[in-house]
Amino acid sequence: MGCLRASRVFSMGFSITYRTMSAAAPKLVAVAESRRFMIDCFKAVKVPQAHAEAQADLLVAADHRGHFSHGMNRLEMYINDLAINSTDGAAVPKILKETPATAWVDGLNGLGAVVGNYCMDLAIKKAKTVGVGWVCAKGSNHYGMAGWYAIRAMDQGLVGMSMTNTSPLMAPTRAKEAALGTNPLSLGANATNGDKFLLDMATTAVAVGKIEIQRRKGAPLPDGWAQDPSGEVTNDAELGFSTGCLMPLGGSELTSGYKGYGLGAMVDILSGVMSGANYSTQVRKWTHAGADSAADLGQVFIAVDPNCFAPNFEERMADFNSRLRGATPTDPSKPVLLAGDKEKKGMADVDAAGGIQYLENQLKTCANLAEILKIKPLSFV
Amino acid sequence: MGCLRASRVFSMGFSITYRTMSAAAPKLVAVAESRRFMIDCFKAVKVPQAHAEAQADLLVAADHRGHFSHGMNRLEMYINDLAINSTDGAAVPKILKETPATAWVDGLNGLGAVVGNYCMDLAIKKAKTVGVGWVCAKGSNHYGMAGWYAIRAMDQGLVGMSMTNTSPLMAPTRAKEAALGTNPLSLGANATNGDKFLLDMATTAVAVGKIEIQRRKGAPLPDGWAQDPSGEVTNDAELGFSTGCLMPLGGSELTSGYKGYGLGAMVDILSGVMSGANYSTQVRKWTHAGADSAADLGQVFIAVDPNCFAPNFEERMADFNSRLRGATPTDPSKPVLLAGDKEKKGMADVDAAGGIQYLENQLKTCANLAEILKIKPLSFV
Repeated sequence: MGCLRASRVFSMGFSITYRTMSAAAPKLVAVAESRRFMIDCFKAVKVPQAHAEAQADLLVAADHRGHFSHGMNRLEMYINDLAINSTDGAAVPKILKETPATAWVDGLNGLGAVVGNYCMDLAIKKAKTVGVGWVCAKGSNHYGMAGWYAIRAMDQGLVGMSMTNTSPLMAPTRAKEAALGTNPLSLGANATNGDKFLLDMATTAVAVGKIEIQRRKGAPLPDGWAQDPSGEVTNDAELGFSTGCLMPLGGSELTSGYKGYGLGAMVDILSGVMSGANYSTQVRKWTHAGADSAADLGQVFIAVDPNCFAPNFEERMADFNSRLRGATPTDPSKPVLLAGDKEKKGMADVDAAGGIQYLENQLKTCANLAEILKIKPLSFV
Repeated sequence: MGCLRASRVFSMGFSITYRTMSAAAPKLVAVAESRRFMIDCFKAVKVPQAHAEAQADLLVAADHRGHFSHGMNRLEMYINDLAINSTDGAAVPKILKETPATAWVDGLNGLGAVVGNYCMDLAIKKAKTVGVGWVCAKGSNHYGMAGWYAIRAMDQGLVGMSMTNTSPLMAPTRAKEAALGTNPLSLGANATNGDKFLLDMATTAVAVGKIEIQRRKGAPLPDGWAQDPSGEVTNDAELGFSTGCLMPLGGSELTSGYKGYGLGAMVDILSGVMSGANYSTQVRKWTHAGADSAADLGQVFIAVDPNCFAPNFEERMADFNSRLRGATPTDPSKPVLLAGDKEKKGMADVDAAGGIQYLENQLKTCANLAEILKIKPLSFV
C-alpha cells in the first residue's frame, strides 16, 4: 500500500481553514451561529436533533479553541459520509460486553461524537464506581479532537484520556509507505481554580496542513516532517506535500522517530486492535467526497478518579503546572507554556472578538452547503 | 533550579557500559553469574534474599536485552543508596487505599523492583477480576526499565503499562532549565506464537549516554538532542554534555518538541502527581555516590485484560505486527522493526554467545564492589 497521492491529501481539506493565511477583512461568526449552522446541516441529512447537537458541539469547540482543522473544516466530509450512508447518523451505540471497570462497545457506524460521548460517559460512570473506566469502541467514525473526551471526564472531576486510530498517513521508521494514522492521544487533568493540563497531540511530527503552509510560502520543510517517495527525509515542501507520507514524532531514526512510531502503534493497539475495529493499513482513506465504505475506526476512552489515590490532586496539579510554566524561558518574550494553554488563549481571543474568524474558502464551502442542503446560510456578527 | 552540571551528569554513570565502545577482547559473564553477583552485592548491604533476587532479576534482564544503562551499570548506585540508608532494602510496600480496580501504594522507600513487582502483581490481580488494574505508588525508588513491569502483565496474558518519573533532566519547550525527568513509559501486548509488541521509551529525544558517545567520537550532535546553557539547541557535543539539559522527544518547538514535553508531563502527572510522590523539580538528583535523601519517586502500573473487549486479541496483534514489519523498507538492508524487536535480538545474541559482554570499566567497578563488600568476584565464561 503506497502513500496518499497529492490530490487525495489536498482533498482531505487540511488547506481550507488556516486563518493565518487569510488576507481578507475579518467576517466573524458567533459561536452559537456556527453551532446553529452545523446542526441545521446535519438535520438536513436526516441526523436526529440530539446527534446533530452532539456533533456540532464537538466541531464548534474545536474552532473556538483554534483547532480549525478539526472544526467546521470537517463538516463537509461528515455531511458527504452521511449523505451516501457511509455513516449512520441515527445509530445508537451498543454495549457488547462489560465488567465493573470495562466495556466493549459497538458504535454501529454512528457519528464520532455520538459514539465518543456515549463511551466516555460510560467510562465516567465506571470510574465513579470502581475508580477506573476503560471503554473500547469499534464501528466508530472520525471523532474530532481527542481532547474533547478528556474534557468530558474533567468536567466530572476525573482524569480523562482518549485515543483513536485514523487513516494511514505515517510511515514507520525505515519504511517508505504509510502504515499508521496520525493516531492522536489526549490526557486531561484539572488543577484548582479552573486551571487545567490538557494534552491533545497527534503522534506524527506535524499535520499535513503544516506541510501545505510551507509549500504555499515557498519555504523549505524542517528535517523530520515528511518523506519523499523513496522514503528519505525531504526538505522540499512541494515533494513532501505530493508524497503525503508524514514522519512520526521525533522525525528520522537518528532523532528517535522510532519512539513516535512506537507511540502511534501503541494508540492503534489500544484503540483499533483491542476493540476489533480496523487498524493499521486496514483503515480506509477519507476524503471530502465521502468514503465508499464504513470507516470502522477503533477508539478508547479512559476515566480515572484521582481521589482513589493521594488526596488533594488538584492542589498538586496547580503546583506542578506552576513549576513548568515558571521554568526560566530561553527567550523572555516567549513564556513556557503548558499543554492546553494555547487553546485557552484561542478561546479567550474568540470571546474577546465576539466570534470565530473563518477563512474565505471555508465560508464559501458553507455557502455551498447551505444552498445544496436548503438551510439558512451562516450569518455574521 | 538549573540543569545538571557536567560532573554530576558524568557521575550518573551513563558512560561506563556501552559495549560499542569496547576495544578489549571479549570477557563474557553468564547471565546466571551476573545475577549471582548482584544478589551477593545486595545481601552484603543487608537486603533480604527475596528482595535481592527481585532487584537482580530486573537488572540482569536489562543487560540480557542490551539495555546496559539500566543493568549492572546501576548496581553501584543502588548499593550506595542502600549503604547510606537512603533506600530501605527490607521495606515491604503497603496498600493505603483500594477499590476493585485501583490501589494507592506506599513503597515505604523500598527497592524499585520490590515496589514495582508488588504494584504490578496487584494490578494484574485486579485486571483478572474487573478487567483493569490501576496502581499508583509513592515512596518508590528507581525502578529500572519500565518494560519489565509490562512484561510481568504480559506473562499473565494481559496488556501491561507502566510509567515512572525520574530526576529532572529535560527542559520544557522554550525553557533553559530542566523541569522534568526522562520520564519513560512502557506498553506491552502479546501476539500469538510468542510474538510481542513491547514499547519502552524515555520521553526525551535521547539519553545522556548518546550525547556522551558523540562527544567521545568528536562528532557533532544532531539537532534536537540537547541544549546549551542559554537554552538554544546545540550541535556541540562537548557543550551539550557539559550543560546536561536534554530536549524532549521531537526536539525543538519547530519539530514539535512540545509534544515530547507534553508526554513527559503526562507521565509525571500519572506517576508523581497522582500518587502524591515527588514530581517535577521536587525530585532529587541521583549520583553514583548515593543520594542524601529518599527519592520518593512516583510510579503507575496498569494491567488490562484484552478478553474484556474483542475476542482473539493475540491473533489480531500478530496481523498488526506483520503489517508494520512488512512495510516496504526505504533501504532493503534495514528492515522495518517493531518495538521490542531490537531487545529480542539482544537476548538472542547473548544466548548465542553464552554470556553478557560488559565493558572493562564496568568489570572494574564490579571488582571494586566485590572487594569492598567482601563477596565472590564475578567469574567469566
